[in-house]
Amino acid sequence: MHTVLLTGAGGRVGDAILGELTDAHEWRLLDREPLTGEYPGETIVADITDGAAVLDAMDGVDVVVHLAGDPRPEAPWNSVLRNNIDGTQTVFEAAVDAGVDRVVFASSNHAVGAYESDARTPEMYRSEDDFRLDGTELPRPGNLYGVSKAAGETIGRYYHDEHDLSVCCIRIGNLTEGHPPIDYERGQAMWLSYRDCAHLIDRAIRAEYGYEIVYGISDNDRKYYSIDRARAVLGYDPQDNSAAHE
Amino acid sequence: MHTVLLTGAGGRVGDAILGELTDAHEWRLLDREPLTGEYPGETIVADITDGAAVLDAMDGVDVVVHLAGDPRPEAPWNSVLRNNIDGTQTVFEAAVDAGVDRVVFASSNHAVGAYESDARTPEMYRSEDDFRLDGTELPRPGNLYGVSKAAGETIGRYYHDEHDLSVCCIRIGNLTEGHPPIDYERGQAMWLSYRDCAHLIDRAIRAEYGYEIVYGISDNDRKYYSIDRARAVLGYDPQDNSAAHE
Repeated sequence: MHTVLLTGAGGRVGDAILGELTDAHEWRLLDREPLTGEYPGETIVADITDGAAVLDAMDGVDVVVHLAGDPRPEAPWNSVLRNNIDGTQTVFEAAVDAGVDRVVFASSNHAVGAYESDARTPEMYRSEDDFRLDGTELPRPGNLYGVSKAAGETIGRYYHDEHDLSVCCIRIGNLTEGHPPIDYERGQAMWLSYRDCAHLIDRAIRAEYGYEIVYGISDNDRKYYSIDRARAVLGYDPQDNSAAHE
Repeated sequence: MHTVLLTGAGGRVGDAILGELTDAHEWRLLDREPLTGEYPGETIVADITDGAAVLDAMDGVDVVVHLAGDPRPEAPWNSVLRNNIDGTQTVFEAAVDAGVDRVVFASSNHAVGAYESDARTPEMYRSEDDFRLDGTELPRPGNLYGVSKAAGETIGRYYHDEHDLSVCCIRIGNLTEGHPPIDYERGQAMWLSYRDCAHLIDRAIRAEYGYEIVYGISDNDRKYYSIDRARAVLGYDPQDNSAAHE
């Protein structure tokens, strides 16, 4: 049982986590907008770039799961600069100041979206293609949102190396509830089911590690992201596969 | 002969470049502060985050050599966020809008400073140690300045992949005029002489490539940055070696 601060708790990843892990941890939920409906734990309304409010929210917290940010792949630079880059630095800095042990950072497939070049697609989205990314490759964002997520990973690396935080960056794929995207090969390749998402975040909260970049997808036949590192270091054991829904 | 816009022209790297390459290119020199003294070409006073001024400065330019930014390793987050991260995105965006072919970006050894761990130093600064970084490794900044330079490299990757700019990121070592740092092993390992600096920038202006990350150091016996990629792709042929001054 950990005390976990979830930033951006009202978003889709928050839904997936809280739906499955309601009683698994002591939750503290932060969002820019008031949360409506049933939520476990204390809720806090604050903007992620408000360092004092973020620091207050971390009092007594063991682990921060940092989801807050502009989630739009097409988000303009000024928004991702502020909400995703500056906001993420604010969270890491506050985590150090508050004595938090660990930050789990919601990165994105968009940090490496430009590996999906015209020459590789759509073949790379198919089971028989053996192209793989494993998290050791340099970022290649296909949009400025992806640039901001890659920057967040580097911010995390700095706070791990220089301030001893344990940090896990999860490049989240295509998270959908119920079933994978229909007629969308890319979405099926990087599908992440709600239950696999919650399980992966739970492992990232509990496992032992220093700094990690892992891919957050289900065990899809079509995958071009390796989940070997998530299995080995975090003990991730996904139950879903988009191929089961074809 | 290219028309080259040098941002941050009044800094130390600008000095090294302009001292050696006065007549090699048609220079346009941009700096936040008025440039005093003898400079070749047109000078423009503008802040790098002023997109309209930066775009104006790029009219008719073939290559941008982007040096502007807060150069202090200990610079606070708010300064590197604005001057180095936001400023670099402004430059790349303007380069696309202005139809510039290429941006040469002054990155820094600080983007990978945390590879210099307690376990590796000072041995890694010595000739007999064979630890090498070659530019394919993930960034590991030792300070927020280094975070900002790593972010600039990723911004460049995006503008190369999505907007067809040719981009070279040069992780500049320890640039000093005349001779390498005395009694400072790290500085000797990553020394970059003024003439090697100017030659490297000249090669980055002239050679053929898509996206590159290279190390900018002289051919020091003590080096732990590989210069193989700079030799192979850019035709870099350094003349100096800090060992010659010991």
